[in-house]
Amino acid sequence: AYPMLGKKKKSILALNPRVKTHANLHSTASKKNEKKHWKRNPERSCDSCVNLENNFDDIKHTTLSERGALREALRCLKCADAPCQKSCPTNLDIKSFITSISNKNYYGAAKAILSDNPLGLTCGMVCPTSDLCVGGCNLYASEEGPINIGGLQQFATEVFSKMGIPQIRNPELPPAHEMPESFHTRIALIGCGPASISCASFLARLGYDNLTIFEKQKYIGGLSTAEIPQFRLPYEVVQFEIDLMKDLGVKVTVKERWGGCHILPTHQQSNVTDINNHAGKKATLPLLCECSNRGMEVAKDEKCEFLPFLSPHEVIMKDGRVVGLRFCRTEQQDDGTWIVDEEQIVHLKADFIISAFGSMLNDPEVKAALEPVKLNGWGTPEVNSETMQSSEPWVFAGGDIAGLANTTVESVNDGKQASWHIHKYIQSLHGNTVSTTPKLPLFHCAIDTVDISVEMCGIKFPNPFGLASAPPTTSAAMIRRAFEQGWGFALTKTFGLDKDLVTNVSPRIVRGTTSGHIFGPGQGSFLNIELISEKTAAYWCKSVAELKADFPKNIIIASIMCGYNQADWTELANMAEDSKADALELNLSCPHGMGERGMGLACGQDPELVRNICRWVRKATTIPFFAKLTPNVTNIVDIARAAYEGGADGVTATNTVSGLMALKADATPWPGIGRGARTTYGGVSGNAIRPIALRAVSAIAKALPGFPILATGGIDSAESGLQFLHAGASVLQVCSAVQNQDFTVIEDYCLGLKALLYLKSIEELHDWDGQSPPTIRHQKGKPVPRVDELIGKVSISVAGRLRLILKNETLFPQRNVPKKPIPNVKDVIARALKHIGAYQELDNTEQVQALIDPEMCVNCGKCYMTCNDSGYQAIKFDPETHLPVIMDSCTGCTLCLSVCPIIDCIKMVTRTTPYVPKRGLPVNPVC
Amino acid sequence: AYPMLGKKKKSILALNPRVKTHANLHSTASKKNEKKHWKRNPERSCDSCVNLENNFDDIKHTTLSERGALREALRCLKCADAPCQKSCPTNLDIKSFITSISNKNYYGAAKAILSDNPLGLTCGMVCPTSDLCVGGCNLYASEEGPINIGGLQQFATEVFSKMGIPQIRNPELPPAHEMPESFHTRIALIGCGPASISCASFLARLGYDNLTIFEKQKYIGGLSTAEIPQFRLPYEVVQFEIDLMKDLGVKVTVKERWGGCHILPTHQQSNVTDINNHAGKKATLPLLCECSNRGMEVAKDEKCEFLPFLSPHEVIMKDGRVVGLRFCRTEQQDDGTWIVDEEQIVHLKADFIISAFGSMLNDPEVKAALEPVKLNGWGTPEVNSETMQSSEPWVFAGGDIAGLANTTVESVNDGKQASWHIHKYIQSLHGNTVSTTPKLPLFHCAIDTVDISVEMCGIKFPNPFGLASAPPTTSAAMIRRAFEQGWGFALTKTFGLDKDLVTNVSPRIVRGTTSGHIFGPGQGSFLNIELISEKTAAYWCKSVAELKADFPKNIIIASIMCGYNQADWTELANMAEDSKADALELNLSCPHGMGERGMGLACGQDPELVRNICRWVRKATTIPFFAKLTPNVTNIVDIARAAYEGGADGVTATNTVSGLMALKADATPWPGIGRGARTTYGGVSGNAIRPIALRAVSAIAKALPGFPILATGGIDSAESGLQFLHAGASVLQVCSAVQNQDFTVIEDYCLGLKALLYLKSIEELHDWDGQSPPTIRHQKGKPVPRVDELIGKVSISVAGRLRLILKNETLFPQRNVPKKPIPNVKDVIARALKHIGAYQELDNTEQVQALIDPEMCVNCGKCYMTCNDSGYQAIKFDPETHLPVIMDSCTGCTLCLSVCPIIDCIKMVTRTTPYVPKRGLPVNPVC
Repeated sequence: AYPMLGKKKKSILALNPRVKTHANLHSTASKKNEKKHWKRNPERSCDSCVNLENNFDDIKHTTLSERGALREALRCLKCADAPCQKSCPTNLDIKSFITSISNKNYYGAAKAILSDNPLGLTCGMVCPTSDLCVGGCNLYASEEGPINIGGLQQFATEVFSKMGIPQIRNPELPPAHEMPESFHTRIALIGCGPASISCASFLARLGYDNLTIFEKQKYIGGLSTAEIPQFRLPYEVVQFEIDLMKDLGVKVTVKERWGGCHILPTHQQSNVTDINNHAGKKATLPLLCECSNRGMEVAKDEKCEFLPFLSPHEVIMKDGRVVGLRFCRTEQQDDGTWIVDEEQIVHLKADFIISAFGSMLNDPEVKAALEPVKLNGWGTPEVNSETMQSSEPWVFAGGDIAGLANTTVESVNDGKQASWHIHKYIQSLHGNTVSTTPKLPLFHCAIDTVDISVEMCGIKFPNPFGLASAPPTTSAAMIRRAFEQGWGFALTKTFGLDKDLVTNVSPRIVRGTTSGHIFGPGQGSFLNIELISEKTAAYWCKSVAELKADFPKNIIIASIMCGYNQADWTELANMAEDSKADALELNLSCPHGMGERGMGLACGQDPELVRNICRWVRKATTIPFFAKLTPNVTNIVDIARAAYEGGADGVTATNTVSGLMALKADATPWPGIGRGARTTYGGVSGNAIRPIALRAVSAIAKALPGFPILATGGIDSAESGLQFLHAGASVLQVCSAVQNQDFTVIEDYCLGLKALLYLKSIEELHDWDGQSPPTIRHQKGKPVPRVDELIGKVSISVAGRLRLILKNETLFPQRNVPKKPIPNVKDVIARALKHIGAYQELDNTEQVQALIDPEMCVNCGKCYMTCNDSGYQAIKFDPETHLPVIMDSCTGCTLCLSVCPIIDCIKMVTRTTPYVPKRGLPVNPVC
Repeated sequence: AYPMLGKKKKSILALNPRVKTHANLHSTASKKNEKKHWKRNPERSCDSCVNLENNFDDIKHTTLSERGALREALRCLKCADAPCQKSCPTNLDIKSFITSISNKNYYGAAKAILSDNPLGLTCGMVCPTSDLCVGGCNLYASEEGPINIGGLQQFATEVFSKMGIPQIRNPELPPAHEMPESFHTRIALIGCGPASISCASFLARLGYDNLTIFEKQKYIGGLSTAEIPQFRLPYEVVQFEIDLMKDLGVKVTVKERWGGCHILPTHQQSNVTDINNHAGKKATLPLLCECSNRGMEVAKDEKCEFLPFLSPHEVIMKDGRVVGLRFCRTEQQDDGTWIVDEEQIVHLKADFIISAFGSMLNDPEVKAALEPVKLNGWGTPEVNSETMQSSEPWVFAGGDIAGLANTTVESVNDGKQASWHIHKYIQSLHGNTVSTTPKLPLFHCAIDTVDISVEMCGIKFPNPFGLASAPPTTSAAMIRRAFEQGWGFALTKTFGLDKDLVTNVSPRIVRGTTSGHIFGPGQGSFLNIELISEKTAAYWCKSVAELKADFPKNIIIASIMCGYNQADWTELANMAEDSKADALELNLSCPHGMGERGMGLACGQDPELVRNICRWVRKATTIPFFAKLTPNVTNIVDIARAAYEGGADGVTATNTVSGLMALKADATPWPGIGRGARTTYGGVSGNAIRPIALRAVSAIAKALPGFPILATGGIDSAESGLQFLHAGASVLQVCSAVQNQDFTVIEDYCLGLKALLYLKSIEELHDWDGQSPPTIRHQKGKPVPRVDELIGKVSISVAGRLRLILKNETLFPQRNVPKKPIPNVKDVIARALKHIGAYQELDNTEQVQALIDPEMCVNCGKCYMTCNDSGYQAIKFDPETHLPVIMDSCTGCTLCLSVCPIIDCIKMVTRTTPYVPKRGLPVNPVC
């Protein structure tokens, strides 16, 4: 009689983020246009004046350390319909990878990057981001400015490279020998540059297994290797990406001339200005550059001088040698046209003149071999800008030769774009049609194959992450969308009997003040005075039935609440069971409103009531049920035990913590209802209560071993979720983290948990903390090699082109293979409990002291101040160097480490002498 | 028999921050040298190549909004012995003013700024900070880079200017008519520029009341008014600072020629490059500039082109008009010397040639009048660089004419330096000597005179801020230092009987994870497993006696703990009373360790035990005592009531919250003790628990009206302290905020509270929230007026110098006078309680809805996402403009506002139609 619940409002959700199932496909040409719509800074081009603008966004003095990356990732707003993605030639889902970095899920970030851009690390390092992704960043409208997207991209892919995990084929594909004949088609890619590497990677992900790249140079990587200076793009980077491609079986042949071929992507245009100046030399050698943006900033750092608006006029020779160059000034007229004014001249001395031009199709052999491909006026192939196909259907082109790409990332996109159309072309030759919606597979590695399902009370959860009974489950439609994004389970918002129907007040959900005056993303807490669902039990029962029908593998737990009355609990429990809910959660813990009506926390603070309610429900139902506990009790273990004794199948720990968030300066509260600005105590959720929830979960798990716990309270990542599993929880409920963002975070949580489990099996990474590699000793991020450190590796050819002298001993990332089984979720539950116990069990003879690493110290003296005013005055602070030194009087309190702004600059190390407390005066009172 | 406790370790504390009692005094010449020691970026000067460096730190595209300022202030490390201060010519205590901004105490920040620099607003706007304060910032060593100190300085002083509060004389001085004759000496200051304004301000603060500034121009402010473009330094700014000076009785006479005089500071050198280019015009008019840094960046923004390393060679004339200019290139040789190379030339066309030179002593009348002052080779007076005195003891010089200052801020410092030596000189003429330590008074206004003392239980607290029984009171020496910095009271660290002496484990105090992966300043929480004091009762009793003797006005409360045993409590209470402690605090709440020994929280969770312990102590002592409560109970009001019934004089609410902070990825906890990495539940402190503590305080205050409460739990500012007063507390205990910084924060708390109380009496500021003015509608901070908006206000004279056409209708800040009495602390206690009550008292017919201001929106769509996935799908998000629009289905939940990154972009406004909840399906179950 009623329409399907929760299948509406499609239109309003059009721009809501969704988890990606495939790489994006947009031609380089179309992206060039789209970008303009979102640009918040001036477009860079030769015919405008913006070359003079003071935009140094692309300078990277350093790469980001983990600390810097976490700080920057936190700033990112994770926008809806994010303009950064729209402005990236490969349509990279930037906000998703930054979300993963925020959550310390570096594999998740790398997967998002490499899925759309197989040269994600290279591009993170060399992209002119201010003209691309960063140019559209909404934070341009804020004082703090746009996000360092390139730096974050580089950070995440570098950490992944250190994990040493190979790429694998899409696990959904049949094995290679079962693939149709068409996927064995021989495909040649000419020139091992970004376009070819990209194209080959995507074709291999699609399942093609006979791919060969032919490279006429002795080295591979194209421009990335040959022309971008080593200190901007080390050779290891290129090798990492090529290795990932080779993991899928792509073959590379160097020093070959190409003969017949199917595809032709080639070198990108040389639009990177070579730098011919040595650091450390006080030179002001003028450098002429083409309209170029990328190398320019770095060159300026090296004290190169740029002279714009000059047109070369005459090379001045003396005794057969170059001695100077004369330029005329170019000027823009009022009508916008440009003239070269021969009356305004600049005369400069020069010993060398270096010109930087793009590579072109100028080798006659190459030209001959390309026939019958039609060439355009520039002597390069005519290419369809959408399909990258030349006039010959079997020849595709990308990168420089196709004339669309000005940057490495656009070359990558050309290769990606071509891959789909090559696939389409080859399949058409075999009489197959391909999906009209492009379906390029994502990046995969062994981490993706880790099983994170978990069984609890006979219920199989596809993954341990679910939505708590809270605002994200306000309606059935929302649960439906959450399941579509990958959530393993969901609680309904708590419903009651019709006689207990509620109507909310507003305002009712406010930001927390627990993390200081920070607005926007990543609120550390929320306070709400929202009641249970305003919807009827009838609505929820019908919804549960429909959801179970449509999502049989997802778990739905009905959250119910009524007064202390057996008949009511029986009626509600029966209704919910009849709806085919997998289980029930008894809300015995709502901290506001309901208590006054004898419900929620009014029942949950008394073990006797909890025990009885559980007994009633046990009697009424056969399905599992869980008591949701309140942390607002003297001893939560007593309540959990009562639930256990009452026959509950487990408990949820915990509901929100009762609190008053904030008062304004005029003494009115926020939220304040109505003209009287009245309020009541609300429930605090989010990270601020995580220590309370972790304590509750671990205490219950220790007291009632094996009694299932559904954890909730500040779970905002796989990393924090794993803490709750280690503390004894079996599954994990989320609310505040979704309020801070949207349902797509589930993808990050699942991948992150897979990565954390997988890495436990890699012995080589024993010194990592989860996905965090050991901190590199540094100041200002990792030191970037300076040009003079590279001398010996670099020679400047007479032709003026930088060429790297490659050394085969360059460190390639080592590949790590699990040597022990990869744990599943069940294996890690409650693993931390053996470390938690009474104070008296702690050994006060095993003492530590602080140790400061002067190389990492930034001289702020935070350690010195806190030790003086909150500690033991055990740190000396040098007035000349501002270096702190720990003295033997250090008692190991750890406050210095706790306030130090630099991760791992201070470490606690074992104390070598016995610790003797300072008693001040001997025993026996004298006053 | 024993030495005075707590009078040692002076040397290790040499660099520990201290609250300022006077302005700093260091000559401009000495500061120029000191700065170099701390510079983290290259020094700017003409004889190095660094002019080419890519340093655009001083560019301010916008000024900071409150949001931007809070975010930036949070980043600041508040370093010990801060290099920013060392690098500021006026030695401004930068970290203190940034601390105050962090704490929303904008008057506190402005006072710190104006105390050392009476032109603090001007300097915040025009200082070349990257070469001064910012150049020394320790955050140069971090990826996020140095702090925008100028922007913060401007923000704080601007907010203060909007408060409209006049400067007053140092309240410690006798009234003017009681001042000695010497202070009525007539003093003339020639030229109303930065040096004179500064000098006059300090002389007036010292008590001189016959000061006149003579200015030959029609306008005042010197270079600030005449030559710095209006869009960089609006005239209102200069007027604000001159008004503050005039508040102290300084007279200014314009359009006067100077005759005889005592002092001569004059215009600073014109080292600001004039900008003669209109925004919006695509011009590339070349501009020759002297070695200048400040205006350059702004000029580049306006598309001016800079040609460095060129020496003017010949002006090219045609028909009596300028048509061009010829330059030769200057080049540095390998030996560091510079040559002008006449073979390398640049020829440019020009219609106008504008030169920018400093003002000099070139008026013959002026020269004559200056006799017999000795002049140097440049024709300016010979000046002692330490005293600013000329060859004639009655003539002092500063600013441009003294030859030391290159910047406005250095001119200000010249005036400041001269003021002390003028004071010394005048007093010597009257046979008086002045302090050998310079004692320049601080800035004062009516806010400083607000009384914030408070009486509780017959004890008078000089201010309501004290140190909790916690790490900051580890020793008597620390309490001593805290009192010296201004803390009103202190609890001792809890001590017990000798039989209960403890020895700590280590590590034991760790940073909280509740605010995410942020390291360094402003940790939102800490967790500790530290026990009570390791020192004996004898030590503490002797310490209390000594401290009371030395600090009779400060309040000392002895914190004591023992088992549930009347004899022990009696003995301890007697010992503490005998030591002359003002009161006792019974620690019934330590959450770790002590409970297992039957102490602390083991007693405090049971009302019966609390009642009995209080009765025992009541019997044993006559002084007031307070029970320190634990929040780890079902109902804290029951425990407070038990204390009340037991005869306690009040309660402390609350101790830390029991928690487990974090587990590493390998399932070990942090802190983890010894090889077994064992831990126990610890106490969570800091902002994360503030909502819990605010709830506890207000609930107790409502239940037991008039029963004194000492609040603790996340008090980190006057603003949060006032919340606790409003919630019902009488005095405020602090711990975590000191751990995050040092004892000097007390100065900010006291001033901040004074300001909050004072502002309550200013009706004109009714729309402020405390010290926060209403949010200005903006994107990217407040819009800076563009040059073309100023047309009509600005004319370019033929001489090529910008001159402002001043309009008298310019908005001067209005002066606000309290029209009602300024409340004292007692008046604000418990003011919020009438707003807090049961849920059922909230009116669900008074509903609100969200309203988005599209002008402030940054298009991130956070509101859209959270409404979709955690709300009601009531926001439309335009795919073209990315502007969100609230629909009528908005239920006013407020989640959109709670996640919006921009303050006040979303407001909740009264709903005009009745709210009808969506029940989903009608009542009566159908499933």
